[in-house]
Amino acid sequence: MSDTTTDPAGTSLGRITALGGGHGLFATLRSARAAADYVTAVVTVADDGGSSGRMRRELGSLPPGDLRMALAALVRDTPRGHLWERTLQHRFSGHGALAGHAVGNLVLTGLSEVLGSSIEALDELSDLLGVRGRVLPMSPEPLDLEAEVQGIGDDPREVNSVRGQVAVASTLGQVRRVRLIPQNPEASPEAVQAILDADLVTLGPGSWFSSVIPHLLMPGIVDALADTTATRAVIMNLVAEPGETSGFSMERHIHMLLQHCPTLTVDVVVVDTSVLLPGNERRHMERAAARLGATVLYRNVREDDDRGRWTDRHSSEKLAGVLRELADWDRPTTATVGSPGTHDEPGHPEERGDSHSGTDV
Amino acid sequence: MSDTTTDPAGTSLGRITALGGGHGLFATLRSARAAADYVTAVVTVADDGGSSGRMRRELGSLPPGDLRMALAALVRDTPRGHLWERTLQHRFSGHGALAGHAVGNLVLTGLSEVLGSSIEALDELSDLLGVRGRVLPMSPEPLDLEAEVQGIGDDPREVNSVRGQVAVASTLGQVRRVRLIPQNPEASPEAVQAILDADLVTLGPGSWFSSVIPHLLMPGIVDALADTTATRAVIMNLVAEPGETSGFSMERHIHMLLQHCPTLTVDVVVVDTSVLLPGNERRHMERAAARLGATVLYRNVREDDDRGRWTDRHSSEKLAGVLRELADWDRPTTATVGSPGTHDEPGHPEERGDSHSGTDV
Repeated sequence: MSDTTTDPAGTSLGRITALGGGHGLFATLRSARAAADYVTAVVTVADDGGSSGRMRRELGSLPPGDLRMALAALVRDTPRGHLWERTLQHRFSGHGALAGHAVGNLVLTGLSEVLGSSIEALDELSDLLGVRGRVLPMSPEPLDLEAEVQGIGDDPREVNSVRGQVAVASTLGQVRRVRLIPQNPEASPEAVQAILDADLVTLGPGSWFSSVIPHLLMPGIVDALADTTATRAVIMNLVAEPGETSGFSMERHIHMLLQHCPTLTVDVVVVDTSVLLPGNERRHMERAAARLGATVLYRNVREDDDRGRWTDRHSSEKLAGVLRELADWDRPTTATVGSPGTHDEPGHPEERGDSHSGTDV
Repeated sequence: MSDTTTDPAGTSLGRITALGGGHGLFATLRSARAAADYVTAVVTVADDGGSSGRMRRELGSLPPGDLRMALAALVRDTPRGHLWERTLQHRFSGHGALAGHAVGNLVLTGLSEVLGSSIEALDELSDLLGVRGRVLPMSPEPLDLEAEVQGIGDDPREVNSVRGQVAVASTLGQVRRVRLIPQNPEASPEAVQAILDADLVTLGPGSWFSSVIPHLLMPGIVDALADTTATRAVIMNLVAEPGETSGFSMERHIHMLLQHCPTLTVDVVVVDTSVLLPGNERRHMERAAARLGATVLYRNVREDDDRGRWTDRHSSEKLAGVLRELADWDRPTTATVGSPGTHDEPGHPEERGDSHSGTDV
């Protein structure tokens, strides 16, 4: 690979470690690729659906789908990178035995079998495709997700167990709590180290119960989040997830993090400017964030469509601008729990060269 | 890829184009990789068995197996090359939908779908894995093999049609003749050009009816073999193939080439020294080769096992020595049909630095 990627601003932007899974993580990584020198993805491994689920059941491998998607997000922004992004994501069509399998899932799993290690396989593919960073499974072993769900039995107050990521994500009931099976699994040591070594750690956006909260059920990751000197940011979704968090307010999303991980503290919660009205809505959000020790940062991170209308997707460029801002965030040296308040301006006005930073209204 | 491969002799050894398929082609390519600056594999595409057959039927692709094996043979002789050779060749195990599929077949077919071209996909993989050369399908379209077989009906003289490479290779009858379906298919223009541009073109070793003769049923390839200024060499098998050519003498192998391609002329036929006894056996072989216009070159190309006993495999190093010798072969400027004689010494004694060149007895 002779091609190189240069940061448009020409400055060194440090290390970002992004926790998540699925499309939410893809979006963060695509922005982080533009915003940082080195990006580490820490990826959930509890998927049991589609191509990943079939491979996991058939071969006993880690579910490769979210890992593959993270790799595709991080390949270099060059013609070769674009080709391999498309190829990793490409799915065989038709109705045969291969239909629906993503090429990247097959390569990653095959290479993992040859090397005897998913992490070594991810490192080799990253190196071959010019990734400036790493993709790491949050756990070296495949995990299962189980949820307590209300509203699917005869008695609406009855709580039932639902097992498997697909079942949890598509339940018609209300998810009360999720857990990993086995419980308290060991985190990948490389993922723990990447959190400790980062300048910025992000959690979310993404499917709250299946891609975001699972990280908070890993004791090793929770400890690393407490110990790191990195700025820790939660990036909120633009809309409640149909199914998983249908009808949840933004502050309820925050309460869910605390419910699953009572010791969690973070520094910043990023919320799109359009999501909450100034006044009561924002005050409720800020009060919830305060329980995490966090300041709320309102920024326009939403993608507009061709006609300037809002979409439900994060804008890669706008989010990259926010990540640049966060990477230089001044973490307070004393705990701010109980006294955070809003934070409508970037921490470092001199860092606001990016045209997207000042679009808050 | 920062690693490089250097030719141990440090000299420029030109371009070898190797025609064949399967394990025979793999052996030639592995030797050619060591013997030449640039190696082009021209590969049969009539396989209908195993992983290749399943993919071909399910996805309508070229059968990828022989292409994959050729690519694996040519990846650089470095740690990364070895890893990817193993990965391309690695097959999923178990009894599920993926069992038996080679990882390289899946990657190659997926990349071909993304690019809309098998040749572009092979070029991209070759470039990524540091191949100094190309792997080309002999035809851009998948082909079928059909054979006239004697000895499988009630009347032993009855001739029956057998369709498909697997069926032909495993028939209990005697193969009389094979054809491709569709007949007279168009050759890949890139393959034709590679034959014209080569210093040395090799045909065989390999399964005679399913990997060697199919090339001679392609008018474009036959014309290129007639027109090229390259030295043209047939490399004979060490033993008759169980099934396909069971019981065939070496000269009958040559007759089969002529029967399928009466206009064929080649320059050299390479026969292992151990295969034919001096005297009548060699004289019969030389007479057969003379009908191709060819000289017979007897060389020790057989792999010995740990205890120095003969195996049925070609030695990669010994064959590389012979390819070096052939790449500088002086093609006679006039036709030698009918007057070739034996050729027990290399054409260029000064090229015999390789310790394996002089082992003929």
